[in-house]
Amino acid sequence: MTTATTSLTSSDVAACCSPLTGGVLDTTAAERLAAVFKALADPARVKLVSLIAAAEGGEACICDLTEPLGLSQPTVSHHMKLLVESGLVTREQRGKWAYYRVNPEALDRLAAAVSTQSKYIN
Amino acid sequence: MTTATTSLTSSDVAACCSPLTGGVLDTTAAERLAAVFKALADPARVKLVSLIAAAEGGEACICDLTEPLGLSQPTVSHHMKLLVESGLVTREQRGKWAYYRVNPEALDRLAAAVSTQSKYIN
Repeated sequence: MTTATTSLTSSDVAACCSPLTGGVLDTTAAERLAAVFKALADPARVKLVSLIAAAEGGEACICDLTEPLGLSQPTVSHHMKLLVESGLVTREQRGKWAYYRVNPEALDRLAAAVSTQSKYIN
Repeated sequence: MTTATTSLTSSDVAACCSPLTGGVLDTTAAERLAAVFKALADPARVKLVSLIAAAEGGEACICDLTEPLGLSQPTVSHHMKLLVESGLVTREQRGKWAYYRVNPEALDRLAAAVSTQSKYIN
């Protein structure tokens, strides 16, 4: 069973990530890990994560994010969709706007997978 | 001064990486971090890092890497070039072959930048 590198299901995100330097990764584990890295492989998405994390209450809506990025709302929405699919960011619809939060567990799992000192926390 | 996202200089790698959730990143910091993530945003490169880290003595040459990947030597060489440029892997030419090692400091700096618990270690 192969996992698409561009779209993760919730179970993939839960399973992510095997440690990068803790033994030879099989193809599925490599694809899962690469998909999460891909979500962060764009300066706009990196900046979006930092903006959301720094926002008041740790929460931001698209309306807060377009101006600091200098990008259109559809472009920001596209980047946010990729971040939500990766599991690194969560989305909650409230009325007209969607509100986003960083998922600290997902970031910490990714950090543990990258660290050469981490234990296997899959 | 803008840093290209596809090619980092050694000073960029040394400067990488500002914490993702430690405050709003400026454009240069976001580009540096995204460039390192991009180096790992491919299942073949993720697998290569895990193969090198797991190799005897923590070292592997291209000749050790083509068969487990099932890719041609030019393709593997291309992936290795991107990993070396990112600073995540080091390369040493010895006679006919180039030998590669994972750079644990670079991986640990990246892990610290991703972790929501890390201190600022730029």
